[in-house]
Amino acid sequence: MGLNSNRVGAEHFDIHGTETPTVKLQTEIPIPSFEIHEVRLPPHQTTLHKLIHRLSEIFFPDDPLSRFRNQTSFTKSLLAFQCLFPIFQWAPQYNLTLLRSDIISGLTIASLAIPQGISYAKLASLPPIVGLYSSFVPPLVYSLLGSSRHLAVGPVSIASLVMGSMLSGTISVAQEPVLYLGTAFTATFFAGVFQASLGILRLGFMIDFLSKATLVGFMAGAAIIVSLQQLKGLLGIVHFSNQMQIIPVLASVFEHRKECSWETILLGLCFLAFLLIARHISLKKPKLFWVSAAAPLTSVILSTIIVYLLRYKTHQIAIIGELPKGVNPPSSNMLSFHGPHLALAIKTGIVTGILSLTEGIAVGRTFASLKNYQVDGNKEMMAIGLMNIAGSCSSCYVTSGSFSRSAVNYNAGAQTAVSNIIMAATVLVTLLFLMPLFYHTPNVVLAAIIITAVIGLIDYQSAYKLWKVDKVDFLACVCSFFGVLFVSVPVGLTIAISISVLKILLHVSRPNTSLLGNIPGTQIFHNTNQYKEALRVPSFLILAVESPIYFANSTYLQERIMRWVQEEEEHIKANKGSTLKCVVLDMTAVTAIDTSGLDTLRELRKMLENRFLHLVLVNPVGNVMEKLHTSKILDSFGLKGVYLTVGEAVADISSLWKAQP
Amino acid sequence: MGLNSNRVGAEHFDIHGTETPTVKLQTEIPIPSFEIHEVRLPPHQTTLHKLIHRLSEIFFPDDPLSRFRNQTSFTKSLLAFQCLFPIFQWAPQYNLTLLRSDIISGLTIASLAIPQGISYAKLASLPPIVGLYSSFVPPLVYSLLGSSRHLAVGPVSIASLVMGSMLSGTISVAQEPVLYLGTAFTATFFAGVFQASLGILRLGFMIDFLSKATLVGFMAGAAIIVSLQQLKGLLGIVHFSNQMQIIPVLASVFEHRKECSWETILLGLCFLAFLLIARHISLKKPKLFWVSAAAPLTSVILSTIIVYLLRYKTHQIAIIGELPKGVNPPSSNMLSFHGPHLALAIKTGIVTGILSLTEGIAVGRTFASLKNYQVDGNKEMMAIGLMNIAGSCSSCYVTSGSFSRSAVNYNAGAQTAVSNIIMAATVLVTLLFLMPLFYHTPNVVLAAIIITAVIGLIDYQSAYKLWKVDKVDFLACVCSFFGVLFVSVPVGLTIAISISVLKILLHVSRPNTSLLGNIPGTQIFHNTNQYKEALRVPSFLILAVESPIYFANSTYLQERIMRWVQEEEEHIKANKGSTLKCVVLDMTAVTAIDTSGLDTLRELRKMLENRFLHLVLVNPVGNVMEKLHTSKILDSFGLKGVYLTVGEAVADISSLWKAQP
Repeated sequence: MGLNSNRVGAEHFDIHGTETPTVKLQTEIPIPSFEIHEVRLPPHQTTLHKLIHRLSEIFFPDDPLSRFRNQTSFTKSLLAFQCLFPIFQWAPQYNLTLLRSDIISGLTIASLAIPQGISYAKLASLPPIVGLYSSFVPPLVYSLLGSSRHLAVGPVSIASLVMGSMLSGTISVAQEPVLYLGTAFTATFFAGVFQASLGILRLGFMIDFLSKATLVGFMAGAAIIVSLQQLKGLLGIVHFSNQMQIIPVLASVFEHRKECSWETILLGLCFLAFLLIARHISLKKPKLFWVSAAAPLTSVILSTIIVYLLRYKTHQIAIIGELPKGVNPPSSNMLSFHGPHLALAIKTGIVTGILSLTEGIAVGRTFASLKNYQVDGNKEMMAIGLMNIAGSCSSCYVTSGSFSRSAVNYNAGAQTAVSNIIMAATVLVTLLFLMPLFYHTPNVVLAAIIITAVIGLIDYQSAYKLWKVDKVDFLACVCSFFGVLFVSVPVGLTIAISISVLKILLHVSRPNTSLLGNIPGTQIFHNTNQYKEALRVPSFLILAVESPIYFANSTYLQERIMRWVQEEEEHIKANKGSTLKCVVLDMTAVTAIDTSGLDTLRELRKMLENRFLHLVLVNPVGNVMEKLHTSKILDSFGLKGVYLTVGEAVADISSLWKAQP
Repeated sequence: MGLNSNRVGAEHFDIHGTETPTVKLQTEIPIPSFEIHEVRLPPHQTTLHKLIHRLSEIFFPDDPLSRFRNQTSFTKSLLAFQCLFPIFQWAPQYNLTLLRSDIISGLTIASLAIPQGISYAKLASLPPIVGLYSSFVPPLVYSLLGSSRHLAVGPVSIASLVMGSMLSGTISVAQEPVLYLGTAFTATFFAGVFQASLGILRLGFMIDFLSKATLVGFMAGAAIIVSLQQLKGLLGIVHFSNQMQIIPVLASVFEHRKECSWETILLGLCFLAFLLIARHISLKKPKLFWVSAAAPLTSVILSTIIVYLLRYKTHQIAIIGELPKGVNPPSSNMLSFHGPHLALAIKTGIVTGILSLTEGIAVGRTFASLKNYQVDGNKEMMAIGLMNIAGSCSSCYVTSGSFSRSAVNYNAGAQTAVSNIIMAATVLVTLLFLMPLFYHTPNVVLAAIIITAVIGLIDYQSAYKLWKVDKVDFLACVCSFFGVLFVSVPVGLTIAISISVLKILLHVSRPNTSLLGNIPGTQIFHNTNQYKEALRVPSFLILAVESPIYFANSTYLQERIMRWVQEEEEHIKANKGSTLKCVVLDMTAVTAIDTSGLDTLRELRKMLENRFLHLVLVNPVGNVMEKLHTSKILDSFGLKGVYLTVGEAVADISSLWKAQP
C-alpha cells in the first residue's frame, strides 16, 4: 500500500497556472504546504434568529416578498393586487392574436369538457348535470386567481371516482339522492377549505409526500377500478355493486350477466373502438391532437342520433334522460355542517382535496416548465381551494386541472387562462339552450368515454422504469396499485405513503458507512468500493458516515463503526499489517446531529480510547460543528480532534507520530 | 476575488515528502497535474445481491454469524449453545473471588428489591406479594439467558405505573380483583411475546425511535404523576382517583383532604426525609452507595416496628396486612386470550413491553460500556421477553432491568449474573419465612420509598442540556413531559415519537443547500458562510446539497436551486460582475436518490439550459452514480457532466472556456 508523497508531503507548488479567462490569479506566492486549516464555527446567531431562518426556509423557501423590496408603495400595492389576481399580470398585454388562439383552444376543450363532465359526474354517482355545472363556475374562478396559463379546469376522473366510492359506501344514491348530493357539496366545500388552507399556511410541501412512484401505482389501480365500473354501462347491466374493489365488481358482473343487452354491448364496443383508435392516432402523431379531442363529442352526437332513430325499435339502451335547463342553481343551502355524515364529508373532502390538488399542481408545473414560466405551488393551492369553495355553493363538485384536457388545451395553442373563460362560455350556452339534445344520449357512450380517458392513466412504462432504477419506489408503486385494487382508495394511498416515509426512516436508521482510501497522486479520499484505485492508508481506518446522526441511528452507527474497527484489527492480525492507530470519521455527509448523536460520538471516543485508538473527525458542517462546540464534546477529543480534510488529518497525525514515535 | 493558481493550474508537484513512519512512499514520479479523475460506478451487483446486502445491513448489522466462520462443527455447536445461554460463557471461569463479590452485591440489591418490589406492585395496583414474586422468577431466568453482568432484574417503576394506569382505566381493582390480576398477567405475557419477537425478528432498532430526549421528558412526567399518586399513601387518604393525569389527581387530594390522618403524614414525612437524605449522601459520595441502598429496608423495618408498637394506640395508619407465605403459585390458568379485555391486555403489554425494554437495554448498555463488554440488543430482547413470558406463568408482572438497582449492583461490585441468583435466593427466603413480618408495615413508608426512587427520574440537567444544544430535541422532551402529565402515558409517548419522526422528515423535506467557495491555496471548496476566507469563483455558482434527493424534497430543491441562480444573477447584474455560466452541484452529501430526485435533476438541467447555464454534478456517491447511470440521465448532460471534485470541475470547465471562448 503506498501513500503518495505529494499529498502528505508536497512542500512546494510551482506557480505554473493554466490561466482561466474569467478567473483572476492570486499574485502572492502560495503558502508552502502542508498547512493545516482550522475548522471554523459558523457565525454566531441567536436562537431567535436561527428559528426565524429555519421557519422561513420551511414555509417561505421561495422568498415571496423579494419582489416587494426596494419598491415604491404604489408599486408595492399594485404588485400585491397582481399577486392576488394573476389575471391582472397579463391582462394589460392581452391582444387579439392571443384571443384568437385562446378561442380555438377554448372551443376545443369545451368539446371535450362537455361529454367528460357528464361522464365524470356519473362516475361520482352524481346527476350528469352537476358535471356541466362544474365545468362552468370553477373555470371562471380559476381564470381570475390561478397562475397557470394552460390548466383546463373541470371535473377530473380520479377525484370523481374517489368521491363516488367514499360516499356511496355509506349513503345510498338510489334511496337518498338529496342527502347524497348535499354530502357531495359539503365534501367539496371541505376539499376547498383544506386546499386553500394548505396554501395559506404554506404547507404545500405536504403534497410532496405523494411521490410520483406512488401516484403511478395509484392511478393505474384507480383506472382499472374505474374501467371495471364502466362494465355496468358497457354491458347495460341495471343492478350493480356500488363497491369499488375489483372482486365485488367482477362478482357483480358475473351475478347480473343475464341483464346484459346485446344492443348496448354492440353500440358500446363500436364507440369504444372509435375512441381508442382516435386516441391512438393522436398519440402517434401529436399534431393530430384534435382527432382525440373531437372524438368524444362526435361519439356523443353520433350515438344520440342513432338512439334517437332507434327510439321506437328498442328500449334496451339506457339513456341519460331529462336534464334541467339553466345555469348553476345556488347550493349553499345544501351544505350541512352537522349531523351523522359530517365526518364522512370531511374525510371525503380531504382525500379528494389532496388528490385533485396533486393532479392540478403537477399538471400546472408540467406545462409551466414546458413554456418556461413559474407556477407558485402555494398560490395555486389557494386558487384551486377557493374555486372549490365557490363551486360547492353553486352546485359543483370537486374540480381541478385535468391532465388530458390541459394537454389538449396546450396543444390547441392556449396562451392564457382566457381559454378557460371561452370554455365556460360554451358550457353556459350548452346549459341554457342545448340540454334537451342530450335526452337520448346513451349511457354506454359515456362509459366508453370514461374508459378511454382513464386508460391513459395506466402508465406501465413508468412502472417499468421504476423497477429498473429504484426497487423501493417500485414497491411503493405496486403496493398502492394493489391497495387501491383490492382494498380501497384511502387504504391504498395510506399504504403507499407509509412505504415512502418508511423508506426515508429506514435510510436514516440504517445509514451507509464506507471505507475511504486515497486516490494516488491527489489529496482526494474516496470510497474504496467505488474507486478500486483508491489505496488504504496503513494505521488509519478512514470511514465516511453517509447520514445525519440521529437518535434513530446513533446506536446502529456506534455498533457498526466498532464492527469496522474489529474487522480491521482481525484483518491486520491475519495479514500481519501495521497496527491500527487512528480512526478518522469523515463527517461531510453528516448534515445534522442531535443530542443522541453527540452522546454516540462521546461514547465512541471512549470505546476507541479503551482500545488505544485515536478518534478524529473531519469536516463537520456548520450546524454540526456548532453543536459539537456547544455540547463541549470537542474538549474531550484532546488537542486536535477536528480537521478540515481527510488529507490534512492523515498528514498531520502521521507527522505527529513521526515526531513522537 | 482571486482563485489560487495552484488549485487550477499547478502542473508540477515537487516530491519532497514529509515521510510518515508507517506509510510507504510511492516511488514513481507522480503524474503531472492537473489530471481529471473519472467518476466511477460501483462494481456491478445483481438485484438479489443488493437486496441481500441491504437486508443484512438492516437486520444483521452486527454480523452475528461471524464468530462461527472457520470453526470446527464441535466448536460451532458449543458457540451456538453459549450464544443461547450466555451463562455458559463465563460459568467455566467462575471462581470464589467472583462469588464473594456477587454475594455481597446480591444481598445489597435484595435489601433494595424487597421493599421496592412491594411498593412497585402497589403502584401497578397489584397485591404487594406479586412484587416479591416478580423479584424471584425473572432474575433466575435472566441469569441464564441475559448477556449483561450488572443488570438487576425485577419490577420497575415506569412499567408498573403504566400498567396500573392503563388497566385501572378500564377494570376496577376494588370490584374485580381477580379479573384485574388475570389481565395484568395476560398483559405481561403479551409484553414478553412482543419483546421476544422484536429480538427474534431483529427489529430491535424500533426502540431506537424512543430517543433519549423523549425519554427524559417522559420519565420526568411519569415521576411527577407517580409522586402525586403517592399522596394517597402519604396523606393516608382512603378514597382516591385512579386516573393518572395531574388534574384529577390534585382534585382528588383536594376533595378527600378531610380523610388525611396526621399520624400517617408525620410518619411519612419523617421517612421521606430519611430516605431523601440517604439518597443525597450517596449522590454526593458515590462510595457511600450503601447508605441509599440500605435505607429502604431500614425504613421498612423501623416503620414496621413503630407501627407494631403503636398498634393498640392508633388505627389511622394503613398497613399492608396479611401476605401469603410460599413461592410463586403458577398463574398460567389466569391468562386469558379471549373476552372483552384481550385488546386492553395486548395494548398494555405492548406499551409496557416497549418501555421496560427501553429501560432494560439502556441500563445494560450503560454498564457494559463502563466495563467495556458488549451487550447484544437483539439477544437482550429475547432474554427479557422470555423472562416475562416465564414470569406471566408464575404470578409475576412486567419486569426489566431497573436503573437504580443496577447502579447499586454495579457499585456493590457485582461481577456476573450470579448476583441476580443471590438476590432471587434472598427473596425466596423472604417469601418462605419472613412474610408475616411485613404484616404491620405501613403503606406510607412504601409511598415514601416510591417517591425517593422516582425523584431521580426528573433529570432537569439533561433537559437544560437539550435546550442548550438542540431546540427540537428539547421540544420533543417538553411535549412528552406535558403529554404524560396532562393527557396520558400512551398519548405522551405518541406525541413525542411523532415529533422525533417529524423532525427527521422535516430535515429531509427541507434540506440545506449551501454556497461553496475556494479556500485560497488549496483545492478545498467549503461553505462560504462557515469559512469566511473561502472565495467565490467568478462565473461559477457552486452549491452543496446536504441531503438525499427524495420525492419529499425534490420539488423544494429544484425551486431552491433556481432561486439561488436567480439571486446570483440579480446580484451579478447589480454589481456588474462576470456573467454566470455554470452551476456546480456538489453531491457528496446526497447519499441517496430516488426516481423523483432523478426527474428533478433532469428538469433542473433543462431549466438551466433555458437560461444558457451549464449544470455539472460533482462526486456522486456509489448508489447515486449507479442510478444516474441506469436512468441514462447523464446522457443528457453532454460530454462531461460529472466530476470527482469541485476543484477539478472548476479547473476543467475554465480551461474549456479558455480553449473555446
